[in-house]
Order: sequence, then C-alpha cells, then structure tokens
Amino acid sequence: MAELVVGADAGGTSTRVTVATTAGARLTTVAGGGANPTTHGVEAAAGELGATVRRALAGLDEQRVAAVFVGLAGRATLGDPAAARLFSAAIGVAARPVFVADTEVAFCSATPAADGTVLVAGTGAMAVDIRDRASARTSDGLGWLLGDEGSAFWLGRAAVRASIADICRTGPATTLTAAVTKHLRVKPAGRSALIRAVAARPPIALAELAPLVTTAADAGDAVAGLICDDAAGRLVRLVADVRDPAATTPIVLTGGVAGPAGSPVGRRVREQLEGEVLATSDGVAGAAWLAVRDVHPEWPETRLAEVHARLRSGVA
Amino acid sequence: MAELVVGADAGGTSTRVTVATTAGARLTTVAGGGANPTTHGVEAAAGELGATVRRALAGLDEQRVAAVFVGLAGRATLGDPAAARLFSAAIGVAARPVFVADTEVAFCSATPAADGTVLVAGTGAMAVDIRDRASARTSDGLGWLLGDEGSAFWLGRAAVRASIADICRTGPATTLTAAVTKHLRVKPAGRSALIRAVAARPPIALAELAPLVTTAADAGDAVAGLICDDAAGRLVRLVADVRDPAATTPIVLTGGVAGPAGSPVGRRVREQLEGEVLATSDGVAGAAWLAVRDVHPEWPETRLAEVHARLRSGVA
Repeated sequence: MAELVVGADAGGTSTRVTVATTAGARLTTVAGGGANPTTHGVEAAAGELGATVRRALAGLDEQRVAAVFVGLAGRATLGDPAAARLFSAAIGVAARPVFVADTEVAFCSATPAADGTVLVAGTGAMAVDIRDRASARTSDGLGWLLGDEGSAFWLGRAAVRASIADICRTGPATTLTAAVTKHLRVKPAGRSALIRAVAARPPIALAELAPLVTTAADAGDAVAGLICDDAAGRLVRLVADVRDPAATTPIVLTGGVAGPAGSPVGRRVREQLEGEVLATSDGVAGAAWLAVRDVHPEWPETRLAEVHARLRSGVA
Repeated sequence: MAELVVGADAGGTSTRVTVATTAGARLTTVAGGGANPTTHGVEAAAGELGATVRRALAGLDEQRVAAVFVGLAGRATLGDPAAARLFSAAIGVAARPVFVADTEVAFCSATPAADGTVLVAGTGAMAVDIRDRASARTSDGLGWLLGDEGSAFWLGRAAVRASIADICRTGPATTLTAAVTKHLRVKPAGRSALIRAVAARPPIALAELAPLVTTAADAGDAVAGLICDDAAGRLVRLVADVRDPAATTPIVLTGGVAGPAGSPVGRRVREQLEGEVLATSDGVAGAAWLAVRDVHPEWPETRLAEVHARLRSGVA
C-alpha cells in the first residue's frame, strides 16, 4: 500500500487539490471554489478548502495520507490561532496539515530548485524571492487598494481611465472605449456614467476588464499596447525589487496575466527578464512535492527531482 | 430694501453658504456638514444643504432673495430629475436654485475672469478648463478608485506603500513608517498588519494620512519629499491635459493639498506652473457672484468686478 500525500493550492478564485503517491503518481486532482480567508472570510474559506480535500480523497484510504501541504493565498490570516485551528480541522485527516504561501507552492511546481524568484500576476501582483523554498523577500502583493501594480485589476482600471481620457479628449482615441462601455453597459458613453458604473460594482470587478486590454493589444490598439508595456515594466520592477541582480536561479511566472507566454503582458515580461524563465499554471504539484519532501527528508535530491518531474507531468 | 443672493459651496466634507446683497456685501456666512450626493446619498445631501441654507437665511427676509447658486460636488447626480427636484425643494426659497460644478464656483471665487483653469487637489484631484465660467474640459476627478492622482487619498496611499517598502527593505528607510504605523495603531509594524489595518477602514480614510507626508516632507524626509514631487508632477500634468499651452488666463488652485502656497505640494505646483496663479479656500464668493450676474445681466463687467472684489474681501 503506497504512502499518499495531499497537495492543495487555495486561491481567491479557485482551489485545486491533488492526491499523489510519494513516488509522484497523481491519483486524483479536483477543483473547487475560492478559499482565500482574507477575501472570503475564515469560516467560508476553511469550509471550501475542506470540502475540496474531501472530494479529492473520496474512495481512497485516508489512513495512508502521510502529509498534507496547502499553499494558501492570504496565509497571514492563520497568524490568528483560532483561524489556524479552523483550517486544520476542516482538512480532517490524521496528518497535521502544513500551510505555506501560495507563491511558494507555485515556485515549487515549476522547479525543484531551492532558490529563485516567483512573479505572480493574476487578479493581484507580487514578486517573492525564494530561499530554501520559502519566501525571503516580497514586493507588492498589497491588494488592489494599495498596489497590485500590473495585475488584472490594474489593467482593468487602466482600461477605464484610457476610455475616459478618450471621451474627454485628454488622451488618444482607443478601441478600448467601445469595449469598456459595452462591458459596463454604459450607453451613451460618458465620463460620469462610466465612473458611476464602476462605483456600482465591487472594486475588484475591474479585473474583469483586463481581457479587453489584452485583446485590444493583440489587435494592434496602440493605447492598449502602451498599457501592456506599462504593466510589464511594473512587473519586471517587482522582480528587481526582491532579486539579487547577479542571481542565476530560475524565475517562475504564474497567474493569468504574466503566466501564458503568448499573452501580451507575458510576452513583454519575458522579453525583459534575463536567465531561466519558467511558468506554472497552478501550485498543486509543488504542494504535493513539498509534502513528499516532508515525509522523506532522507531521500537524496536526485530521487526527489524524479518525483518532482512525475508530479509535474501529471498537471492537468 | 437691498436685493439678496445666496451662494453655496457643497462638498464632501463641508458645506458653506453665504447670503450677500447684489452690491457684494456679505451678510451671513455659515458652515454645515458635507452635501455631496454621490458620497452621502441624495436625500441626506439635499437635507444637509437645505438645513445649512435655512441657517444662513435666519432673521433675513427670504422674499428679497433674487437668486440662489450652488456649487455642488457630485452635480452629475442631478441628471436624475427626481434628485434635482429633491435638491430644489430642500433649498425652499421662491427663487429657483441653479446648481453648477464646485470647480466653477471655486474658479469664480478667485477671479472675475471668464476663462482659465482650475486645479482642485484636496481629498480628490482634478483639473478643469473653464470657458465662460463653465467647465469646458476635465482631467481626472475620477474618484479614489479610478484616479484622483496627487490628491490627499493618493498621498496617504503612497505613505503606506513607502512604509511597507521600508519594512520589506524593497525601498529606502523613511520616518513615514513610524508615523503611519502609529496613526494606524499597528504594533509591531509589519507588512501584513499594515495591509489589514488599511483594509479594515473605508478606502477614503487613506486621505487622513496625507498630513503625515507633508509634515515629514517639511521636516526633510527624502522619501516624503519624493512623494510630494510625484504628486505635484501629476497635478501639473492634469493642468496640461486640459489647458491650451499658449493660454495666458489665470490658473486657480484650491483644496487642502494644492491650495496653500506654503504647503509642500502647493509650493511645488506653483514652481512648475507658468503665468498668473491664484488660490481660493472655498467657493461661496464665486457662487454668490454668479447669482449676482444672473440677477443683473445688464450690469457692465467693471461694476460686476467691483461686486466680485467686495464679495471676495468678505471671505472669512
């Protein structure tokens, strides 16, 4: 009977959980709703994470689970002992779950290296320098109110600003104006009407406008292209904020804005970063691998690297 | 029995109302609470404005009021006829009140000129090019979510960002860190604790941190000085967005950030603007003067300029 590990990646939008053997074979991978305690509340987030883990373990022998690692967006919330207890209880297996940063499991999904840098640009944006597979230094990741520069939120806000500048003739004409006013159902397009339409929705809903920018940039809209230039420049600066300029360690890109190599921002970021640039679309492989490392600290790195490759090839 | 006019300046933080004779003598000036329908709601804002006007008219003969002009922040809300009726009814005098932009009465408070530019930098930030005493072109004024670059909100947010960069060693040391963490009662100072403290308050409360930046800049803090440089640069750009570069018309500064000539941002803005730069601390004189113009369109501009000077000298 093989030993099992559970790896989870819980973010604001979705939660993914994989169950694997310590040899690296992924048995089950499931997706659930968002489970970020900062944005969803501790109780709801713990409940969603727990329910997704239970689904992943269905039909498997829980007694065989030797370790559970969870990459959790909003992990700082677990500094509160009551919140930490709630999360541990929600997982509900004998092995005590270990909660690490979502950025750490993202890094470990892409590479078995111990050191490097991870750049997240999705709904939010942050760069983290990784030492010994743990966060050593962070830039941004401050949330939409204080930062997240270059994120989907930031791109969406820039799209509205560019549209209003176009309407008010304080900026150049752009196809974004029609796309944004259509998406926000503002008719006729006007400065005050756009401001009101944005104010009537939750601020984070601005992130939904990000695809309008990338689509317009791909279609050759100059204003959208400049917004993508600006976003990429800010994201590259986040990496520079935390990374030793002489480092030769890998840089891992993740998140919908910077992750895909063919996307306007992802392409621009890659043009400006030097060295080995990797990408990962989610962190469950890294979480499962950290669990394997925890169960078998005595295994040599070569063997652990083979497990890593197997876990990674199983990414759906 | 002299003809009377009522001039009001209704903003997000306070409302000021003056009652004057058409010759320019100010009889009563009173202050009340905020009356911006966008931020306070239409009913509450109309009620506060109405109550403040009633207080200003106490002991005076309302039959003598020939015109009422109100500079209203959030005036676009009155595009809704029901809201407009509520506001008119709240004033409650026989003369039908005229609602204009708060930026227009600010401009008219500082100068009897017909054309020019007004730059507002207080809680929010915007530049408006004025033609014939009415708004012709606007830049920013988008509210804290979309813009207000260089405003008190923007300064406060920059202070938190600089403090977190200091704590995370991604930016230089600054006295702002101690000032911000003390103001937000975060102890011990930490990245996550600061983010949580900001998230626990209404976003606009970041504007309360602006005085920490200007105080630190005055005391020689380099980081705070750079934030003020950046704010001033953005405000000057707003003016450039809307103003004909060849214009020789006056530029009027208003609001707590850019208005005072001795303030760090006010001083920097003045260093970069060319031509006649005026300032005004509130718009009631301009509102009253627009009312006089409305009652006596036949008066020559020289006579109206004398009335303007009299109304202006009466500013408390």
